[in-house]
Amino acid sequence: MARAFTIGIDYGTNSVRAVVVDCADGHTVGTHVFDYPSGNQGILLDPKQPHLARQNPADYIAGLRESVRGALADAEPQRGFAREQVIGIGVDTTGSTPLPIDAHAAPLALNPRFTNTLAAHAWLWKDHTSAHEAARITEIAREHHPELLAPIGGTYSSEWWWSKIWHCLNVAPDVFDAAASWVELADFIPAVLAGVTNPRDIVRCICAAGHKAMYSDAWGGLPPKAFLARLDPKVADLRDRLYDKAWPSGRPAGQLSESWATELGLRAGIPIAMGGFDAHYGAVGSGVTSGTLVKIIGTSTCDCAVAPAADRIAEIPGICGIVNGSIMPGYFGIEAGQSAVGDLLKWWVEIVCGGGEALHASLSSEAASLAPGESGLLALDWNNGNRTILVDTRLTGLLLGQTLHTTRAEIYRALIEATAYGARAIVERMREYGVAIDRVVCCGGIAEKNDLFMQIYADVLGQPMLIAGSSQTPALGSAVAAAVTAGSAAGGYDEWTDAQARMTSLKPKSFEPRPDAQAVYDRLYGIYRELHDAFGGVAATRADLASVMKRLLQIKERAVEITA
Amino acid sequence: MARAFTIGIDYGTNSVRAVVVDCADGHTVGTHVFDYPSGNQGILLDPKQPHLARQNPADYIAGLRESVRGALADAEPQRGFAREQVIGIGVDTTGSTPLPIDAHAAPLALNPRFTNTLAAHAWLWKDHTSAHEAARITEIAREHHPELLAPIGGTYSSEWWWSKIWHCLNVAPDVFDAAASWVELADFIPAVLAGVTNPRDIVRCICAAGHKAMYSDAWGGLPPKAFLARLDPKVADLRDRLYDKAWPSGRPAGQLSESWATELGLRAGIPIAMGGFDAHYGAVGSGVTSGTLVKIIGTSTCDCAVAPAADRIAEIPGICGIVNGSIMPGYFGIEAGQSAVGDLLKWWVEIVCGGGEALHASLSSEAASLAPGESGLLALDWNNGNRTILVDTRLTGLLLGQTLHTTRAEIYRALIEATAYGARAIVERMREYGVAIDRVVCCGGIAEKNDLFMQIYADVLGQPMLIAGSSQTPALGSAVAAAVTAGSAAGGYDEWTDAQARMTSLKPKSFEPRPDAQAVYDRLYGIYRELHDAFGGVAATRADLASVMKRLLQIKERAVEITA
Repeated sequence: MARAFTIGIDYGTNSVRAVVVDCADGHTVGTHVFDYPSGNQGILLDPKQPHLARQNPADYIAGLRESVRGALADAEPQRGFAREQVIGIGVDTTGSTPLPIDAHAAPLALNPRFTNTLAAHAWLWKDHTSAHEAARITEIAREHHPELLAPIGGTYSSEWWWSKIWHCLNVAPDVFDAAASWVELADFIPAVLAGVTNPRDIVRCICAAGHKAMYSDAWGGLPPKAFLARLDPKVADLRDRLYDKAWPSGRPAGQLSESWATELGLRAGIPIAMGGFDAHYGAVGSGVTSGTLVKIIGTSTCDCAVAPAADRIAEIPGICGIVNGSIMPGYFGIEAGQSAVGDLLKWWVEIVCGGGEALHASLSSEAASLAPGESGLLALDWNNGNRTILVDTRLTGLLLGQTLHTTRAEIYRALIEATAYGARAIVERMREYGVAIDRVVCCGGIAEKNDLFMQIYADVLGQPMLIAGSSQTPALGSAVAAAVTAGSAAGGYDEWTDAQARMTSLKPKSFEPRPDAQAVYDRLYGIYRELHDAFGGVAATRADLASVMKRLLQIKERAVEITA
Repeated sequence: MARAFTIGIDYGTNSVRAVVVDCADGHTVGTHVFDYPSGNQGILLDPKQPHLARQNPADYIAGLRESVRGALADAEPQRGFAREQVIGIGVDTTGSTPLPIDAHAAPLALNPRFTNTLAAHAWLWKDHTSAHEAARITEIAREHHPELLAPIGGTYSSEWWWSKIWHCLNVAPDVFDAAASWVELADFIPAVLAGVTNPRDIVRCICAAGHKAMYSDAWGGLPPKAFLARLDPKVADLRDRLYDKAWPSGRPAGQLSESWATELGLRAGIPIAMGGFDAHYGAVGSGVTSGTLVKIIGTSTCDCAVAPAADRIAEIPGICGIVNGSIMPGYFGIEAGQSAVGDLLKWWVEIVCGGGEALHASLSSEAASLAPGESGLLALDWNNGNRTILVDTRLTGLLLGQTLHTTRAEIYRALIEATAYGARAIVERMREYGVAIDRVVCCGGIAEKNDLFMQIYADVLGQPMLIAGSSQTPALGSAVAAAVTAGSAAGGYDEWTDAQARMTSLKPKSFEPRPDAQAVYDRLYGIYRELHDAFGGVAATRADLASVMKRLLQIKERAVEITA
């Protein structure tokens, strides 16, 4: 049989990456990264609004063209590759990143009238200008439609679809009024490739709809008009101009248009896979399946698991998203996360200690020489709030146990440990509600580069830490989605698990828990949970705070004795 | 009337300072500092015992001779000064710093047999090798003689007399057995100057006896033999070889011996004032009197107040020492303290941030530009435990409220604020138990140099911060004691308050509380007390920890609005 290739396109926060992948074994034969050209690494900022983060849709289009062309040019010289053998394209993006579009499905921001209006551009996932609207949505839903909050962990976020759109209405009503519809970036790019010119023809993925827009088949799609009218009648009216149905991955979002086929030098008509969020396709590219938790560890961490749709997954309190079909069809996609992981270490090393890469390395090596518990420190990992399992952005950091001898390396280690305790809290919560987790696969820069970090995670979670074989799991996952969407007849696959088995892999290196360390970390995790519950406002907490410092000193003294 | 001068000698941790002071106005006409010559700035250490800190009595003797000779040589050229006009000598020292002596009142360490035995040297105040003994003494006293603990705050310390002497018996019984008696450094130096050659003739000050050796006239002096026998029968036996009576300041400890008079070029027979602790004579030199709290702010802080002996001062829980006559005769001396103040900032700047003097200055200037509450941070000042009002060395530091934007300067300020809250807790406790505090006078390097620190203290305490006029208040206080001991007939004074009024002063600069800042700090102090009581194990605490981070964020947001 002829060789077949798919293209995966990954829209990150600062760049677009395209890969050309061999369907037989997942090997990357071509790759190209397009960095957004405008200032601030492609992010539009407003000095007067620190929480604002937008992107110019023109950069998305340019990035699409340049990244795919570059990846194909990179693949071209490879033996056995030919452009005609590309059987499909998959796309993943950041999200929720909604943008307003006109009646022809073109971004409003491309219209000269709106080019200088920030609200007309794409509202990047990390735009937090809509905090007030998010709080109101949560309040109104709690009072009138609590069912809407159940699958998203009980709290609506300022990062999500409705908060942003409502905020647009409040601050830039001209943009809101001019928008024929709104679209998630994850749905927009496939629609661009497919040449869609009517907002109604955009195929919407359940991934964005279910996790960010309170969409569920249980209540007939998007939230009822009566609910949206409580936000604003204009938001209720907008519902008619959005979409009735969102789909799981696997179904094509469209076929490559003639004009984009010409632009890219590919065959017209090849399928475009349903778009998805980077974390979800990253999980696919890391081999997520029943019983496997994928941790995408970067500045923050995103945890993805799936559970067979046949199992009835109850709501899991504090887990921000459980959506049928959001990661792979036939499974509940379960998403959790930690708001600051790499960012927490970056804060410590760069902002507080005033160092750079070299200091990261030296603190890491010094921290590696410490025994668990030896520092006497315990931290909460909440410098950027707590996403899971407390779902509270208004929480902050805590460090406890320091003496006059405490070193920066000890604090560095305590911060890693804090994120590991946070990770354990997520795993325990999932298990408590029936989600099997037999295997943990990590991906992202920290997973590949920071052995100390991974060993601490293995020890704290009491579970081997495996590492995904690819360093670009979202793009690889998009390519997997494209291979499944194309189907076996075209040289792809009919089953997701088959595609994953062939196209994804693990690195040979893994990290095993050490029983001695595990025992110490079990005690420390217990203290972490006491503080977590007390400061996080968990009802019925039984923290013995008066003994916390003394218990840490006991653990420290024992650790020092053992290592002495 | 002819001019009169006194000499004040201050035994610090690393040096001996002597000053020659004009009795008329407290002006220093000569000064000399003798740095201890042995390694480690005169402190004997043992690499195997990090809590050990001893000093060689030979250094004390050399320091006595050199510092006084130097100060006199410095004074000699001054117009109007003559050695014959020196009418008395006062001495203050660190404490509790006990040393074993032989039957001729000579330090055992000067005997070649013991020169190389660390236990035979002076046990410096900060020697913490006796933690086990201290804990046992507290236990035994609580069970059998709770009255012994009442005046010292309820807990006996590893820094104090009996802990150290008992530990000597446990680890170096040969030294213990060879000791005819033990003496506090504060009593030893006056005895040396007076030429005392029999331990029984050493005049003991109530200051050391009452604060460190559980001496009280209420139970006939030192603790009863029955109590000491519960530690060890040999300790009980030692009681007979110590002293029956300790005296308040004002009474002479002796007269200058012929040999030391010759050695120093002074008149033989001039009175030697009763020795005292540096903090107490520092308070005298800062003008302590009824209603005035003196804060000696350095690496740690010592708070000294006096209350008329006629007032019945109840026990004050958590205040480590209330001793009749310990600071000045006719008053209860009340002593409190914070274990880490300058040390806390030093830790942050030098150990964590890896900087030096320049970084101290730049963090201080950056921190000064912040409004109260603007950082959103709150810290507990317990990196070295809590001396007052919790009396618990097994407490540790806590920092709370940090985000990914928190800077080192914000933390620097939060640490200063934490020590100010700790200071306020002490003041509130004293007032609660009837000690009037109408005026706060600060001395020490931080008080003189760090304006930011002093302004924060004024704002947090809601009280002007005054600064002592002298930079060497302990030495000046010793000179005041010498002037009172000499009496008006000799050119000194008969009343302490008269001597203080003439010989001590305030700097023109002071720090006034700012009402806006005070209001914010009142709220922050409330949160500090919630954490203080919760982690400090104060019974019946009603901390609402679940809202702590949110309350700090509210205060922060309001502060940012005001300063924006």
